Amino acid sequence: MTLLSPAELEAALRDIGARRYHRLHPFHAMLHNGKCSKGQVQAWALNRYYYQAMIPIKDASLIARCDDSAIRREWRSRLVDHDGEQEGDGGIARWLKLTDGLGLDREYVTSLRGLLPGTRFAVEAYVRFVREKTLLEAIASSLTELFSPAIIGERMAGMLANYDFVTRETLSYFDKRPPQAKKDSDFALDYVKRHARTPRDQQAVLAALEFKCSVLWSMLDALQHAYVDPKQAPPGAFVPAD
Amino acid sequence: MTLLSPAELEAALRDIGARRYHRLHPFHAMLHNGKCSKGQVQAWALNRYYYQAMIPIKDASLIARCDDSAIRREWRSRLVDHDGEQEGDGGIARWLKLTDGLGLDREYVTSLRGLLPGTRFAVEAYVRFVREKTLLEAIASSLTELFSPAIIGERMAGMLANYDFVTRETLSYFDKRPPQAKKDSDFALDYVKRHARTPRDQQAVLAALEFKCSVLWSMLDALQHAYVDPKQAPPGAFVPAD
Repeated sequence: MTLLSPAELEAALRDIGARRYHRLHPFHAMLHNGKCSKGQVQAWALNRYYYQAMIPIKDASLIARCDDSAIRREWRSRLVDHDGEQEGDGGIARWLKLTDGLGLDREYVTSLRGLLPGTRFAVEAYVRFVREKTLLEAIASSLTELFSPAIIGERMAGMLANYDFVTRETLSYFDKRPPQAKKDSDFALDYVKRHARTPRDQQAVLAALEFKCSVLWSMLDALQHAYVDPKQAPPGAFVPAD
Repeated sequence: MTLLSPAELEAALRDIGARRYHRLHPFHAMLHNGKCSKGQVQAWALNRYYYQAMIPIKDASLIARCDDSAIRREWRSRLVDHDGEQEGDGGIARWLKLTDGLGLDREYVTSLRGLLPGTRFAVEAYVRFVREKTLLEAIASSLTELFSPAIIGERMAGMLANYDFVTRETLSYFDKRPPQAKKDSDFALDYVKRHARTPRDQQAVLAALEFKCSVLWSMLDALQHAYVDPKQAPPGAFVPAD
Protein backbone atom coordinates (compact mmCIF):
# COMPACT_ATOMS: atom_id res chain seq x y z
CA MET A 1 0.00 0.00 0.00
CA THR A 2 1.40 3.37 -1.00
CA LEU A 3 0.38 6.81 0.23
CA LEU A 4 -1.64 8.65 -2.42
CA SER A 5 -1.61 12.42 -2.81
CA PRO A 6 -5.02 14.03 -2.20
CA ALA A 7 -5.42 14.42 -5.99
CA GLU A 8 -4.55 10.75 -6.55
CA LEU A 9 -7.04 9.72 -3.89
CA GLU A 10 -9.74 11.77 -5.61
CA ALA A 11 -8.85 10.18 -8.95
CA ALA A 12 -9.07 6.71 -7.40
CA LEU A 13 -12.49 7.54 -5.93
CA ARG A 14 -13.74 8.84 -9.29
CA ASP A 15 -12.42 5.70 -10.94
CA ILE A 16 -14.54 3.59 -8.59
CA GLY A 17 -17.56 5.61 -9.68
CA ALA A 18 -16.69 5.10 -13.33
CA ARG A 19 -16.56 1.33 -12.84
CA ARG A 20 -19.08 0.56 -10.11
CA TYR A 21 -21.78 3.24 -9.88
CA HIS A 22 -25.31 1.96 -10.56
CA ARG A 23 -25.56 4.20 -13.60
CA LEU A 24 -23.90 1.20 -15.32
CA HIS A 25 -26.59 -1.25 -14.18
CA PRO A 26 -28.84 -2.70 -16.92
CA PHE A 27 -31.94 -1.75 -14.94
CA HIS A 28 -30.93 1.92 -15.02
CA ALA A 29 -30.56 1.72 -18.80
CA MET A 30 -34.02 0.12 -19.10
CA LEU A 31 -35.53 2.74 -16.82
CA HIS A 32 -34.26 5.80 -18.64
CA ASN A 33 -34.57 4.33 -22.14
CA GLY A 34 -38.30 3.82 -21.74
CA LYS A 35 -37.98 0.03 -21.70
CA CYS A 36 -39.71 -0.43 -18.35
CA SER A 37 -43.41 -1.17 -18.02
CA LYS A 38 -45.35 1.07 -15.68
CA GLY A 39 -45.32 -1.76 -13.13
CA GLN A 40 -41.53 -1.93 -13.29
CA VAL A 41 -41.26 1.83 -12.76
CA GLN A 42 -43.65 1.49 -9.83
CA ALA A 43 -41.54 -1.30 -8.34
CA TRP A 44 -38.43 0.85 -8.68
CA ALA A 45 -40.05 3.87 -7.00
CA LEU A 46 -41.59 1.79 -4.24
CA ASN A 47 -38.33 0.07 -3.37
CA ARG A 48 -36.25 3.22 -3.66
CA TYR A 49 -38.67 4.87 -1.21
CA TYR A 50 -37.14 2.83 1.60
CA TYR A 51 -33.69 4.12 0.74
CA GLN A 52 -34.99 7.71 0.77
CA ALA A 53 -36.82 7.17 4.06
CA MET A 54 -33.70 5.80 5.76
CA ILE A 55 -31.33 8.53 4.62
CA PRO A 56 -32.07 10.92 7.52
CA ILE A 57 -31.66 8.02 9.94
CA LYS A 58 -28.30 7.29 8.35
CA ASP A 59 -27.30 10.95 8.54
CA ALA A 60 -28.44 11.37 12.15
CA SER A 61 -26.44 8.23 12.97
CA LEU A 62 -23.38 9.91 11.53
CA ILE A 63 -24.01 13.14 13.46
CA ALA A 64 -24.49 11.06 16.62
CA ARG A 65 -20.91 9.81 16.44
CA CYS A 66 -19.25 13.07 15.61
CA ASP A 67 -17.66 15.16 18.36
CA ASP A 68 -16.99 18.17 16.13
CA SER A 69 -19.73 20.79 16.24
CA ALA A 70 -18.73 22.22 12.83
CA ILE A 71 -19.07 18.86 11.06
CA ARG A 72 -22.36 18.15 12.82
CA ARG A 73 -23.65 21.55 11.69
CA GLU A 74 -22.60 20.88 8.09
CA TRP A 75 -24.08 17.39 8.08
CA ARG A 76 -27.33 18.69 9.62
CA SER A 77 -28.23 20.31 6.29
CA ARG A 78 -28.78 16.79 4.96
CA LEU A 79 -31.49 16.27 7.56
CA VAL A 80 -33.10 19.50 6.38
CA ASP A 81 -32.87 18.39 2.74
CA HIS A 82 -34.63 15.10 3.40
CA ASP A 83 -37.08 15.86 6.23
CA GLY A 84 -37.78 19.44 5.12
CA GLU A 85 -38.67 22.51 7.14
CA GLN A 86 -42.32 21.55 7.52
CA GLU A 87 -44.86 18.86 6.69
CA GLY A 88 -44.91 18.07 2.95
CA ASP A 89 -41.46 19.56 2.39
CA GLY A 90 -38.16 17.74 1.85
CA GLY A 91 -36.86 14.84 -0.19
CA ILE A 92 -38.96 12.08 1.37
CA ALA A 93 -42.18 14.04 0.77
CA ARG A 94 -41.10 14.72 -2.82
CA TRP A 95 -40.38 11.03 -3.35
CA LEU A 96 -43.93 10.28 -2.22
CA LYS A 97 -45.17 12.70 -4.90
CA LEU A 98 -43.45 10.42 -7.37
CA THR A 99 -45.05 7.25 -5.98
CA ASP A 100 -48.43 9.09 -5.87
CA GLY A 101 -47.95 10.15 -9.49
CA LEU A 102 -47.25 6.55 -10.46
CA GLY A 103 -50.58 5.52 -8.96
CA LEU A 104 -49.23 3.73 -5.89
CA ASP A 105 -51.18 3.92 -2.65
CA ARG A 106 -49.24 6.05 -0.18
CA GLU A 107 -50.14 3.98 2.86
CA TYR A 108 -48.98 0.84 1.03
CA VAL A 109 -45.67 2.48 0.05
CA THR A 110 -44.85 3.82 3.51
CA SER A 111 -45.93 0.57 5.21
CA LEU A 112 -42.98 -1.11 3.41
CA ARG A 113 -45.14 -4.21 3.03
CA GLY A 114 -44.29 -4.64 -0.65
CA LEU A 115 -40.57 -4.01 -0.27
CA LEU A 116 -38.12 -6.54 -1.69
CA PRO A 117 -36.00 -8.17 1.02
CA GLY A 118 -32.95 -7.41 -1.13
CA THR A 119 -33.75 -3.70 -0.89
CA ARG A 120 -34.28 -3.86 2.84
CA PHE A 121 -31.03 -5.71 3.50
CA ALA A 122 -28.98 -3.40 1.30
CA VAL A 123 -30.35 -0.23 2.89
CA GLU A 124 -29.93 -1.62 6.38
CA ALA A 125 -26.36 -2.62 5.60
CA TYR A 126 -25.70 1.01 4.67
CA VAL A 127 -27.12 2.37 7.93
CA ARG A 128 -25.17 -0.22 9.90
CA PHE A 129 -21.96 0.65 8.06
CA VAL A 130 -22.36 4.31 9.02
CA ARG A 131 -23.02 3.39 12.65
CA GLU A 132 -20.20 0.88 13.04
CA LYS A 133 -17.27 1.90 10.85
CA THR A 134 -14.99 4.86 11.52
CA LEU A 135 -16.31 8.39 11.00
CA LEU A 136 -13.93 8.71 8.04
CA GLU A 137 -15.42 5.60 6.40
CA ALA A 138 -18.96 6.76 7.22
CA ILE A 139 -18.31 10.09 5.49
CA ALA A 140 -16.59 8.37 2.55
CA SER A 141 -19.59 6.11 2.02
CA SER A 142 -21.65 9.20 1.09
CA LEU A 143 -19.41 9.89 -1.89
CA THR A 144 -21.66 8.22 -4.45
CA GLU A 145 -23.19 11.71 -4.51
CA LEU A 146 -20.18 12.73 -6.59
CA PHE A 147 -21.78 10.78 -9.42
CA SER A 148 -25.47 11.39 -8.82
CA PRO A 149 -25.99 14.66 -10.76
CA ALA A 150 -25.14 12.81 -14.00
CA ILE A 151 -27.47 9.86 -13.34
CA ILE A 152 -30.27 12.18 -12.25
CA GLY A 153 -29.97 14.20 -15.45
CA GLU A 154 -30.18 11.03 -17.56
CA ARG A 155 -33.01 9.62 -15.51
CA MET A 156 -35.18 12.75 -15.70
CA ALA A 157 -34.68 13.36 -19.42
CA GLY A 158 -35.19 9.70 -20.25
CA MET A 159 -38.25 9.20 -18.06
CA LEU A 160 -39.98 12.39 -19.26
CA ALA A 161 -39.31 11.52 -22.90
CA ASN A 162 -40.35 7.89 -22.66
CA TYR A 163 -43.22 7.49 -20.19
CA ASP A 164 -46.56 9.23 -20.59
CA PHE A 165 -47.35 8.39 -16.94
CA VAL A 166 -44.40 10.47 -15.68
CA THR A 167 -44.61 14.28 -15.41
CA ARG A 168 -42.17 17.01 -14.49
CA GLU A 169 -44.27 17.57 -11.33
CA THR A 170 -43.94 13.97 -10.17
CA LEU A 171 -40.16 14.15 -10.74
CA SER A 172 -39.77 17.24 -8.52
CA TYR A 173 -37.49 15.21 -6.23
CA PHE A 174 -34.84 15.16 -8.93
CA ASP A 175 -35.03 18.92 -9.57
CA LYS A 176 -33.84 19.61 -6.05
CA ARG A 177 -31.17 16.97 -5.64
CA PRO A 178 -28.25 17.94 -7.94
CA PRO A 179 -27.26 21.20 -6.13
CA GLN A 180 -27.71 19.51 -2.73
CA ALA A 181 -25.63 16.52 -3.84
CA LYS A 182 -22.94 18.82 -5.24
CA LYS A 183 -22.66 20.79 -1.98
CA ASP A 184 -22.66 17.63 0.13
CA SER A 185 -20.17 15.72 -1.97
CA ASP A 186 -17.82 18.73 -2.17
CA PHE A 187 -17.73 18.76 1.63
CA ALA A 188 -17.30 15.00 1.99
CA LEU A 189 -14.62 14.80 -0.71
CA ASP A 190 -12.66 17.63 0.90
CA TYR A 191 -13.00 15.91 4.28
CA VAL A 192 -11.67 12.56 3.12
CA LYS A 193 -8.82 14.18 1.15
CA ARG A 194 -7.73 16.04 4.28
CA HIS A 195 -8.26 13.24 6.80
CA ALA A 196 -7.17 10.06 5.00
CA ARG A 197 -3.46 10.52 5.58
CA THR A 198 -2.16 6.99 5.82
CA PRO A 199 -2.29 4.22 3.20
CA ARG A 200 -4.55 2.26 5.56
CA ASP A 201 -7.04 5.14 5.89
CA GLN A 202 -7.00 5.73 2.16
CA GLN A 203 -7.72 2.09 1.44
CA ALA A 204 -10.57 2.22 3.95
CA VAL A 205 -12.00 5.28 2.17
CA LEU A 206 -11.84 3.55 -1.20
CA ALA A 207 -13.42 0.42 0.25
CA ALA A 208 -16.21 2.52 1.79
CA LEU A 209 -17.10 3.93 -1.61
CA GLU A 210 -16.98 0.48 -3.19
CA PHE A 211 -19.25 -0.77 -0.43
CA LYS A 212 -21.74 2.02 -1.06
CA CYS A 213 -21.70 1.38 -4.81
CA SER A 214 -22.54 -2.26 -3.98
CA VAL A 215 -25.51 -1.13 -1.88
CA LEU A 216 -27.00 0.83 -4.80
CA TRP A 217 -26.08 -1.87 -7.32
CA SER A 218 -27.66 -4.68 -5.34
CA MET A 219 -30.90 -2.70 -5.00
CA LEU A 220 -31.16 -2.71 -8.81
CA ASP A 221 -30.16 -6.39 -8.94
CA ALA A 222 -33.05 -7.18 -6.62
CA LEU A 223 -35.45 -5.21 -8.84
CA GLN A 224 -34.20 -6.87 -11.98
CA HIS A 225 -34.46 -10.35 -10.55
CA ALA A 226 -37.97 -9.76 -9.21
CA TYR A 227 -39.52 -7.74 -12.03
CA VAL A 228 -37.48 -8.24 -15.23
CA ASP A 229 -35.51 -11.41 -15.50
CA PRO A 230 -36.34 -14.08 -14.39
CA LYS A 231 -39.22 -11.88 -13.13
CA GLN A 232 -39.54 -13.86 -9.97
CA ALA A 233 -40.67 -11.63 -7.09
CA PRO A 234 -40.35 -13.21 -3.64
CA PRO A 235 -43.48 -13.98 -1.60
CA GLY A 236 -45.10 -10.83 -0.21
CA ALA A 237 -43.37 -8.42 -2.56
CA PHE A 238 -45.23 -5.83 -4.64
CA VAL A 239 -47.08 -7.33 -7.61
CA PRO A 240 -47.57 -4.90 -10.51
CA ALA A 241 -50.97 -4.80 -12.22
CA ASP A 242 -49.40 -4.96 -15.71
CA MET B 1 -50.05 -0.81 38.15
CA THR B 2 -53.04 1.33 37.20
CA LEU B 3 -53.58 3.33 34.04
CA LEU B 4 -53.15 7.06 34.70
CA SER B 5 -55.02 9.73 32.78
CA PRO B 6 -52.74 12.06 30.78
CA ALA B 7 -53.23 14.73 33.48
CA GLU B 8 -52.34 12.24 36.23
CA LEU B 9 -49.24 11.19 34.31
CA GLU B 10 -48.18 14.83 34.00
CA ALA B 11 -48.76 15.34 37.73
CA ALA B 12 -46.65 12.26 38.51
CA LEU B 13 -43.85 13.57 36.28
CA ARG B 14 -43.96 16.98 37.95
CA ASP B 15 -43.88 15.28 41.34
CA ILE B 16 -40.65 13.52 40.37
CA GLY B 17 -39.18 16.92 39.51
CA ALA B 18 -40.30 18.32 42.85
CA ARG B 19 -38.54 15.52 44.71
CA ARG B 20 -35.54 14.59 42.56
CA TYR B 21 -34.44 17.48 40.34
CA HIS B 22 -30.91 18.74 41.03
CA ARG B 23 -32.29 22.12 42.09
CA LEU B 24 -32.57 20.39 45.49
CA HIS B 25 -28.90 19.40 45.58
CA PRO B 26 -26.72 21.12 48.22
CA PHE B 27 -24.16 22.04 45.56
CA HIS B 28 -26.80 24.01 43.64
CA ALA B 29 -27.67 25.94 46.81
CA MET B 30 -23.97 26.71 47.40
CA LEU B 31 -23.53 27.81 43.80
CA HIS B 32 -26.39 30.26 43.65
CA ASN B 33 -26.02 31.52 47.23
CA GLY B 34 -22.49 32.72 46.59
CA LYS B 35 -20.94 30.08 48.82
CA CYS B 36 -18.66 28.62 46.15
CA SER B 37 -15.07 29.70 45.69
CA LYS B 38 -14.04 30.72 42.21
CA GLY B 39 -12.30 27.34 41.87
CA GLN B 40 -15.54 25.53 42.74
CA VAL B 41 -17.45 27.55 40.15
CA GLN B 42 -14.72 26.73 37.63
CA ALA B 43 -14.97 23.02 38.46
CA TRP B 44 -18.73 23.15 37.99
CA ALA B 45 -18.50 24.90 34.60
CA LEU B 46 -15.70 22.65 33.38
CA ASN B 47 -17.56 19.46 34.27
CA ARG B 48 -20.88 20.70 33.00
CA TYR B 49 -19.17 21.49 29.68
CA TYR B 50 -19.04 17.77 28.92
CA TYR B 51 -22.79 17.48 29.42
CA GLN B 52 -23.35 20.43 27.06
CA ALA B 53 -20.97 19.01 24.47
CA MET B 54 -22.72 15.63 24.46
CA ILE B 55 -26.27 16.96 24.15
CA PRO B 56 -26.25 17.17 20.33
CA ILE B 57 -24.81 13.65 20.20
CA LYS B 58 -27.64 12.51 22.45
CA ASP B 59 -30.21 14.32 20.32
CA ALA B 60 -28.83 13.01 17.03
CA SER B 61 -28.92 9.51 18.57
CA LEU B 62 -32.61 10.01 19.24
CA ILE B 63 -33.26 11.28 15.69
CA ALA B 64 -31.32 8.29 14.36
CA ARG B 65 -33.84 5.87 15.84
CA CYS B 66 -36.96 7.70 14.86
CA ASP B 67 -38.88 6.69 11.73
CA ASP B 68 -41.27 9.65 11.83
CA SER B 69 -40.13 12.59 9.73
CA ALA B 70 -42.26 15.06 11.76
CA ILE B 71 -40.66 14.07 15.07
CA ARG B 72 -37.19 14.12 13.55
CA ARG B 73 -37.89 17.63 12.21
CA GLU B 74 -39.09 18.82 15.63
CA TRP B 75 -36.14 17.24 17.44
CA ARG B 76 -33.70 18.73 14.91
CA SER B 77 -34.26 22.19 16.43
CA ARG B 78 -32.33 20.93 19.46
CA LEU B 79 -29.30 20.36 17.25
CA VAL B 80 -29.65 23.92 16.00
CA ASP B 81 -29.94 25.24 19.58
CA HIS B 82 -26.74 23.53 20.68
CA ASP B 83 -24.51 23.53 17.59
CA GLY B 84 -25.80 26.86 16.24
CA GLU B 85 -26.15 28.10 12.68
CA GLN B 86 -22.49 28.99 12.32
CA GLU B 87 -19.15 28.92 14.14
CA GLY B 88 -19.37 30.62 17.56
CA ASP B 89 -23.15 30.30 17.70
CA GLY B 90 -25.23 27.85 19.76
CA GLY B 91 -25.31 26.54 23.30
CA ILE B 92 -21.91 24.82 23.33
CA ALA B 93 -20.17 27.99 22.11
CA ARG B 94 -22.04 30.01 24.73
CA TRP B 95 -21.01 27.58 27.45
CA LEU B 96 -17.39 28.11 26.39
CA LYS B 97 -17.90 31.87 26.88
CA LEU B 98 -18.72 31.02 30.46
CA THR B 99 -15.61 28.90 30.96
CA ASP B 100 -13.54 31.63 29.22
CA GLY B 101 -15.08 34.23 31.53
CA LEU B 102 -14.14 32.12 34.53
CA GLY B 103 -10.53 32.14 33.40
CA LEU B 104 -10.32 28.52 32.23
CA ASP B 105 -8.17 27.66 29.25
CA ARG B 106 -10.43 26.67 26.37
CA GLU B 107 -8.16 23.96 25.03
CA TYR B 108 -7.99 22.44 28.53
CA VAL B 109 -11.78 22.52 28.89
CA THR B 110 -12.53 20.96 25.51
CA SER B 111 -9.77 18.35 25.90
CA LEU B 112 -11.82 16.92 28.81
CA ARG B 113 -8.54 16.14 30.57
CA GLY B 114 -9.71 17.62 33.87
CA LEU B 115 -13.15 16.03 33.83
CA LEU B 116 -14.30 14.05 36.88
CA PRO B 117 -14.89 10.38 36.05
CA GLY B 118 -18.26 10.69 37.82
CA THR B 119 -19.29 13.36 35.31
CA ARG B 120 -18.12 11.29 32.37
CA PHE B 121 -19.93 8.17 33.50
CA ALA B 122 -23.19 10.00 34.22
CA VAL B 123 -23.23 11.78 30.85
CA GLU B 124 -22.33 8.61 28.99
CA ALA B 125 -25.07 6.72 30.81
CA TYR B 126 -27.52 9.34 29.51
CA VAL B 127 -26.40 8.97 25.89
CA ARG B 128 -26.51 5.18 26.19
CA PHE B 129 -30.01 5.32 27.67
CA VAL B 130 -31.24 7.34 24.68
CA ARG B 131 -29.62 4.90 22.26
CA GLU B 132 -30.80 1.70 23.90
CA LYS B 133 -34.18 2.26 25.53
CA THR B 134 -37.45 2.71 23.65
CA LEU B 135 -38.07 5.95 21.75
CA LEU B 136 -40.78 6.78 24.30
CA GLU B 137 -38.29 6.43 27.17
CA ALA B 138 -35.66 8.38 25.25
CA ILE B 139 -38.09 11.26 24.76
CA ALA B 140 -39.26 11.06 28.39
CA SER B 141 -35.67 11.32 29.62
CA SER B 142 -35.53 14.86 28.20
CA LEU B 143 -38.30 16.00 30.53
CA THR B 144 -35.99 17.49 33.14
CA GLU B 145 -36.34 20.53 30.89
CA LEU B 146 -39.78 20.99 32.43
CA PHE B 147 -37.96 22.14 35.53
CA SER B 148 -34.97 23.95 34.08
CA PRO B 149 -36.41 27.47 33.61
CA ALA B 150 -36.81 27.76 37.41
CA ILE B 151 -33.29 26.55 38.22
CA ILE B 152 -31.78 28.76 35.52
CA GLY B 153 -33.56 31.83 36.93
CA GLU B 154 -32.22 31.09 40.42
CA ARG B 155 -28.76 30.32 39.15
CA MET B 156 -28.40 33.50 37.08
CA ALA B 157 -29.77 35.85 39.74
CA GLY B 158 -27.72 34.19 42.47
CA MET B 159 -24.48 34.04 40.52
CA LEU B 160 -24.71 37.64 39.29
CA ALA B 161 -25.48 38.91 42.80
CA ASN B 162 -22.82 36.89 44.56
CA TYR B 163 -19.73 36.54 42.36
CA ASP B 164 -17.75 39.50 41.08
CA PHE B 165 -16.04 37.20 38.56
CA VAL B 166 -19.36 36.40 36.83
CA THR B 167 -20.95 38.82 34.34
CA ARG B 168 -24.19 38.90 32.40
CA GLU B 169 -22.12 38.39 29.23
CA THR B 170 -20.48 35.20 30.50
CA LEU B 171 -23.92 33.87 31.48
CA SER B 172 -25.36 34.39 27.98
CA TYR B 173 -25.97 30.64 27.73
CA PHE B 174 -28.69 30.93 30.35
CA ASP B 175 -30.43 33.85 28.62
CA LYS B 176 -31.20 31.67 25.64
CA ARG B 177 -32.17 28.42 27.31
CA PRO B 178 -35.54 29.03 29.06
CA PRO B 179 -37.63 29.62 25.87
CA GLN B 180 -35.86 26.72 24.10
CA ALA B 181 -36.42 24.44 27.10
CA LYS B 182 -40.08 25.49 27.31
CA LYS B 183 -40.71 24.73 23.62
CA ASP B 184 -38.84 21.42 23.81
CA SER B 185 -40.44 20.22 27.03
CA ASP B 186 -43.92 21.18 25.80
CA PHE B 187 -43.37 18.92 22.80
CA ALA B 188 -41.89 16.04 24.81
CA LEU B 189 -44.58 16.23 27.51
CA ASP B 190 -47.34 16.21 24.91
CA TYR B 191 -45.64 13.26 23.19
CA VAL B 192 -45.42 11.11 26.31
CA LYS B 193 -48.96 11.98 27.40
CA ARG B 194 -50.27 10.83 24.01
CA HIS B 195 -48.05 7.77 23.58
CA ALA B 196 -47.78 6.24 27.07
CA ARG B 197 -51.12 4.44 26.95
CA THR B 198 -50.50 1.37 29.07
CA PRO B 199 -49.51 1.18 32.73
CA ARG B 200 -46.24 -0.43 31.67
CA ASP B 201 -45.41 2.43 29.28
CA GLN B 202 -46.35 5.02 31.89
CA GLN B 203 -44.11 3.39 34.48
CA ALA B 204 -41.29 3.35 31.93
CA VAL B 205 -41.81 7.07 31.28
CA LEU B 206 -41.70 7.87 35.00
CA ALA B 207 -38.60 5.71 35.43
CA ALA B 208 -36.93 7.50 32.51
CA LEU B 209 -37.40 10.86 34.20
CA GLU B 210 -36.14 9.47 37.51
CA PHE B 211 -33.11 8.09 35.67
CA LYS B 212 -32.40 11.48 34.12
CA CYS B 213 -32.77 13.24 37.45
CA SER B 214 -30.18 10.79 38.79
CA VAL B 215 -27.79 11.70 35.97
CA LEU B 216 -27.93 15.41 36.88
CA TRP B 217 -27.87 14.70 40.61
CA SER B 218 -24.84 12.44 40.43
CA MET B 219 -22.93 15.08 38.44
CA LEU B 220 -23.34 17.44 41.41
CA ASP B 221 -22.48 14.63 43.86
CA ALA B 222 -19.21 14.13 42.00
CA LEU B 223 -18.44 17.87 42.20
CA GLN B 224 -19.27 18.05 45.87
CA HIS B 225 -17.15 15.04 46.73
CA ALA B 226 -14.18 16.31 44.72
CA TYR B 227 -14.27 20.02 45.50
CA VAL B 228 -16.34 20.62 48.67
CA ASP B 229 -16.60 17.77 51.10
CA PRO B 230 -14.44 15.75 51.63
CA LYS B 231 -12.75 17.82 48.87
CA GLN B 232 -11.01 14.82 47.48
CA ALA B 233 -10.60 15.12 43.71
CA PRO B 234 -9.54 11.91 41.97
CA PRO B 235 -6.13 11.69 40.27
CA GLY B 236 -5.97 13.70 37.05
CA ALA B 237 -9.03 15.83 37.78
CA PHE B 238 -9.01 19.63 37.56
CA VAL B 239 -7.21 21.28 40.50
CA PRO B 240 -8.43 24.81 41.26
CA ALA B 241 -5.84 27.49 41.97
CA ASP B 242 -7.67 28.71 45.08
